[in-house]
Amino acid sequence: MNVGFVGLGIMGTPMAAHLVAAGHTVSGYDVVPESLDKLTASGGRAASSVADAVEGAEVVITMLPNHPQVEHVVLGQGGVLESAKPGTLLADMSTIRPETSLEVAKAAQEKGIRVLDAPVSGGEAGAKQAALSIMVGGEQADFEVVLPLFEALGKTIVHVGPHGAGQVVKAANQLVVGGIYALVSEAIVLMEGSGVDAGTGLDVLAGGLAANRILDLKRESMVQRRFEPGFRIDLHHKDMSIAIAAARQAEVSLPMTGLVAQLIASARAMGHGSLDHSALLKVTEQLSGRA
Amino acid sequence: MNVGFVGLGIMGTPMAAHLVAAGHTVSGYDVVPESLDKLTASGGRAASSVADAVEGAEVVITMLPNHPQVEHVVLGQGGVLESAKPGTLLADMSTIRPETSLEVAKAAQEKGIRVLDAPVSGGEAGAKQAALSIMVGGEQADFEVVLPLFEALGKTIVHVGPHGAGQVVKAANQLVVGGIYALVSEAIVLMEGSGVDAGTGLDVLAGGLAANRILDLKRESMVQRRFEPGFRIDLHHKDMSIAIAAARQAEVSLPMTGLVAQLIASARAMGHGSLDHSALLKVTEQLSGRA
Amino acid sequence: MNVGFVGLGIMGTPMAAHLVAAGHTVSGYDVVPESLDKLTASGGRAASSVADAVEGAEVVITMLPNHPQVEHVVLGQGGVLESAKPGTLLADMSTIRPETSLEVAKAAQEKGIRVLDAPVSGGEAGAKQAALSIMVGGEQADFEVVLPLFEALGKTIVHVGPHGAGQVVKAANQLVVGGIYALVSEAIVLMEGSGVDAGTGLDVLAGGLAANRILDLKRESMVQRRFEPGFRIDLHHKDMSIAIAAARQAEVSLPMTGLVAQLIASARAMGHGSLDHSALLKVTEQLSGRA
Amino acid sequence: MNVGFVGLGIMGTPMAAHLVAAGHTVSGYDVVPESLDKLTASGGRAASSVADAVEGAEVVITMLPNHPQVEHVVLGQGGVLESAKPGTLLADMSTIRPETSLEVAKAAQEKGIRVLDAPVSGGEAGAKQAALSIMVGGEQADFEVVLPLFEALGKTIVHVGPHGAGQVVKAANQLVVGGIYALVSEAIVLMEGSGVDAGTGLDVLAGGLAANRILDLKRESMVQRRFEPGFRIDLHHKDMSIAIAAARQAEVSLPMTGLVAQLIASARAMGHGSLDHSALLKVTEQLSGRA
Repeated sequence: MNVGFVGLGIMGTPMAAHLVAAGHTVSGYDVVPESLDKLTASGGRAASSVADAVEGAEVVITMLPNHPQVEHVVLGQGGVLESAKPGTLLADMSTIRPETSLEVAKAAQEKGIRVLDAPVSGGEAGAKQAALSIMVGGEQADFEVVLPLFEALGKTIVHVGPHGAGQVVKAANQLVVGGIYALVSEAIVLMEGSGVDAGTGLDVLAGGLAANRILDLKRESMVQRRFEPGFRIDLHHKDMSIAIAAARQAEVSLPMTGLVAQLIASARAMGHGSLDHSALLKVTEQLSGRA
Repeated sequence: MNVGFVGLGIMGTPMAAHLVAAGHTVSGYDVVPESLDKLTASGGRAASSVADAVEGAEVVITMLPNHPQVEHVVLGQGGVLESAKPGTLLADMSTIRPETSLEVAKAAQEKGIRVLDAPVSGGEAGAKQAALSIMVGGEQADFEVVLPLFEALGKTIVHVGPHGAGQVVKAANQLVVGGIYALVSEAIVLMEGSGVDAGTGLDVLAGGLAANRILDLKRESMVQRRFEPGFRIDLHHKDMSIAIAAARQAEVSLPMTGLVAQLIASARAMGHGSLDHSALLKVTEQLSGRA
Repeated sequence: MNVGFVGLGIMGTPMAAHLVAAGHTVSGYDVVPESLDKLTASGGRAASSVADAVEGAEVVITMLPNHPQVEHVVLGQGGVLESAKPGTLLADMSTIRPETSLEVAKAAQEKGIRVLDAPVSGGEAGAKQAALSIMVGGEQADFEVVLPLFEALGKTIVHVGPHGAGQVVKAANQLVVGGIYALVSEAIVLMEGSGVDAGTGLDVLAGGLAANRILDLKRESMVQRRFEPGFRIDLHHKDMSIAIAAARQAEVSLPMTGLVAQLIASARAMGHGSLDHSALLKVTEQLSGRA
Repeated sequence: MNVGFVGLGIMGTPMAAHLVAAGHTVSGYDVVPESLDKLTASGGRAASSVADAVEGAEVVITMLPNHPQVEHVVLGQGGVLESAKPGTLLADMSTIRPETSLEVAKAAQEKGIRVLDAPVSGGEAGAKQAALSIMVGGEQADFEVVLPLFEALGKTIVHVGPHGAGQVVKAANQLVVGGIYALVSEAIVLMEGSGVDAGTGLDVLAGGLAANRILDLKRESMVQRRFEPGFRIDLHHKDMSIAIAAARQAEVSLPMTGLVAQLIASARAMGHGSLDHSALLKVTEQLSGRA
C-alpha cells in the first residue's frame, strides 16, 4: 500500500521501517531532519511536508507526542485533512485524549476522510520488535483495510469499539499499570519498613491472587532500585493526564486514578521523569522517610 | 505429632481434618459446639477447653477471626500460654495485625513457648483443598519443626522473616489485591462510561503490562456483575484494617492503601459485605452514577 | 473609560451594568441575542461582533465560560487580538487554566496589547451586588489602569503577581473550598453514622481550630440537606479541572486536590451538577450507604 | 467536690491545678513521681495508686495518652472500676477511639459507676489558660453534675450526645483540622510552584469562602516555614488513627480522612513528629520536589 507517515520519533522510525520491510511504499515526514535520513536509510521516501507525505497515500499514519501536535498536523493549515484526498484512511496511532480523537473523526468525516484511533502499548522495544499491542477505535470496515499494515507493526491488534475507543482502552491500561506500580511500591515499603525481606515477600505475592505482570518483570529490579527505562515516568505522567481527561469526558469518577496521577506527578516533580515508571517506588519511599 | 487446634470455623475445620488425615493426633476446641462434632467426625478429639486442647500437644495451632480472639485465647486466663508446657510450639495461623503477633511472641518467650505467625491466603477453597499459601514469621528452626504439618495444609509455604513477618506479607498481599480490584473497577467504569465494551477492552489489558491474576480469574464475572464469593468484602475490610495498622506499626505512609481501605469500607457500608471482594466495582459504579 | 465587554452571561450582564452605572461607556457583545437586550436596557451599547465591541475601547473585558471560548474570542479569527488597536488593555476575567492565560499574554504582547488575568470569586450574588473578589495577574502599571473599573465590580481587589497569577490564586481558592466541603461532609457522615447530632457537633467544630466560613454559612443547610445554589457543582467541577491543570503546569503534586476533583466529579456523575457545591455531602453519604 | 485525678501529664497537671484553685479537693495519681510533686505544689494531694486517688472521690477524672492506658487504668486490676464505690462519676477526658469509650461505659454500668467521655481540644495552652473546648458524651444528668468542674477547665463545654459522642465529635474535629492543613499546604505549594507569592495569595483566600481559622492563625508561620508547636504531628497522627477507627466503628467510608491520615503519617515518618501539625506542608513540598 501507499502509506504517508507523519511523526518519525523513537516509535515512528522503527514502525515506518517495518512497513517498508513488509513491502509497502512509505512517504514520511517529521520536523526533525535527522528522522528523514533514518527513513531514507530504511528504504522510505523523505517528504518535504505533511502535504507531500500525504499526497497519493491510501493510508496515512500519524505517530505524534500528544494532542496539540495531532491538532496541528491533522486539523491545522496544510495538515492531513486539508491535503489528503477524500477516501484516504487516517490511522492516528498517537496516544491522546479520546476527546481529540472524536474531534478529529468528526472533522475528517466532513472532508470524506475515514479515521481510526489506534494507540499502541509496548514502548520502544515493542516498536523495534514489531511486537506492539494496538487498540483500534473506528469502523470495522476501516479496521480491516488497515489490518495488514498493523500486522507488520504489532502482535495483539484488537478492534475495541467506535471512534475514540482505542484511546479509552489505552487510558484504562495505563491507569491500571500506574496503579499496580503504586501498590507494589507500597507493598515493598511496608515490608522493608517492617524488617521483612521484600524480595522474599514479593515472591509469595507473585504466587497468589496478587500476581501480576509487573511483579513478574520488575520486582527484582525494584527491590534492587534499578530504574533504567523501559517506559519513562514523563510518558506515564502524560498518559495519566489522558486518563483523567477521559474520565471527565465519560463523566465518571475515578478516585484511585486521581491519586495515582498525583503520585506519578510527584515522581516527575522530584526529578525522576527520565527513569522507568517503576521509579514510582521512590515517591513511596520518600513519603515514608526511607529515601 | 500431637496437635492442639483452637478455632474450628470455616477455615479451621477442614484444616484440622487434613492434619488427622495426614496421621497426626488432633485435639481441638471451639466455642461453637457443632464445630467439635465435625472434628470428631473427621477423627479428631473434641477438647472441653483451650487448656484441654493444649494439654500434651507438641504443636498448638490457632485459627481465629481477629486479634481480640487471639489475645483472649492465647494471652487470656486459661489460655494457651497459661496451659501449654514450656517447649510447646504455637503456630498462630490467624490473620491479625503484626503488632499483636509481636506481643504474643514476646509473652510466649517469657513462658518458654516458641511461636510462629503463619497467616494463610487461599480462602475456604484453599483450606478444603489443602492448597493454602502459608506465610510464616519466626525462627527458622521452629519453621522446620512445623513444616510437615503445614505441608498437609498448603502448597506454597514460605518462611518470610522474623516474628510478625508472616502478617506483614499477608497485609502486603491484601493491599495489592484490594488495590487491583479498585483499579480494574475504574478501568471497567471508564470503558463502559465511554461506550466501549469492557469485556473486549479487558481482554486487551490482560495481554499486556496490566495483566494480573484478578483479570484472569474475575474479569468475566465482574463485567457480568456476578459477585458470589469467593472471598467476602467483610473479610477484606478486616484485612485492610490490618494493613493500615501494619503501616502505622512500621511507621510508613501508604496513601493508596489508605484510599483502598475506605473504598472497601464503602462496599461494606453499602450493604455488600457478604459479596465477593470483586464487588468493589459496585462502589466505583455508584460514584460514577452508573448503579 | 471606553470599555469593550465580551461575554454577557449570568456574571457578565450585571458586571457590565455596574460599569455603565459607574459612568463608563460600555460596548458589549455576546453570541446570545437576549444578552444584548439586557445590556441596552442598562444603558450599554449592543455591538454586532467582537470586533465591533472592541473598536475604540481603551479596556476590553472578557468574561467567558472556559479556555476554549477565551481562545476563540481572544486568539481566533476576528477576535480581540486581531481587532483591538495596539495599546489596548485586555482584562480577561474568565476563570481558566493559567496555561491559557500565559498563552494569551504572549500572543497579545506580539500585537502590542497589554493583558491582565483577573478571575473573580463571589458568584452570581457577588456580581449582582458588585461585591466580587478579583485576583489579578499581570503588570502593576496595567493593574492600576484597570483598578477604577474593578472597583465598580468588586470589594477585594488584589494584584497577586505576574501573568497567570490571578488564575493560580483562583485555583488555589477553589481547591481549598472544595476540599473543606468534602471534609465537613465526612465530619457530618461520621457523626450521624455514630448516632451523634451533627448540628450540635458542628457547632463545637465552628468554635475551635476547625472553624471555617463554610461551616459558618452552610452547616445548617447541609445538616438539613438543602442544596439550592449558590455555586453549582458543575462550575466547581470545571474549577477543579483548572486546579489539576494548574498543578500540572507548575509541576507540583497535589494528592488532596486530585481526590477532591474526583469526588466533585462524582457529585456531577450522580446527577447533582445543578445543586450547590455543598451537595458534595451526597457523595459522602452514598459512599457510606446512607443515601 | 472530692475529685480523683489520674494522669498528670502536660494536660493533666494544669487541669488539676485549676480544679484546686476553684476550691475542689483533688487527690491525684500518675506513674511519673515528678507529676505528683507538681500536684502537691499546687495544693492537691499525691495519691499512692489509682485506688488511693479514687477513694472517697465523687468524681474521677482520667486524662491519659490513648486507649491502652485507659483500658489499664480504668478496666485493669486495681483500676478505677475495681476501686471506686458505686455511684461515683468517671469523666474520661482522654482522646481515645469511641469504641473504647463505649466499652468503658458498659463495664462501668455493671459496677454501678456512671461515665462520661469528655475529650478536649485547645492543647497545652488551652489547659494552662483554662480555655479548653470540652466535648461530652453520656447522660445529661451526669453532665450537669460535672459541669462545675468542667467550667473550671474550659470555655466551650457542650453535651454532644450519648456515650462515645464526645470522642466522635473530637475525631470529626481532628479530621477537619488535619484536612485543612493539607489543603492549605497544597494551595501554598501550587502558588509557590507557579511563581506566585503565597503570602499575598493566602491573604485573598482568607477574605473569601476559603476562609478558616488555620489560615488566620498559621498562614504567616507556614509561609515562613516556622513549625514550632503548638500541637505536635505525633499527636495528630494518633488522633487520625482514632478518626479512622471511629469511621470503622460507625461503618462509614471517609476517603479524604483516609488520605489525610497517610499524609500525616508521612510527616511523622519523615522525622517531623515533634513539629507543629502545620508542618504537614513539608510533606506536600517533598512530594512536589520543593524540599
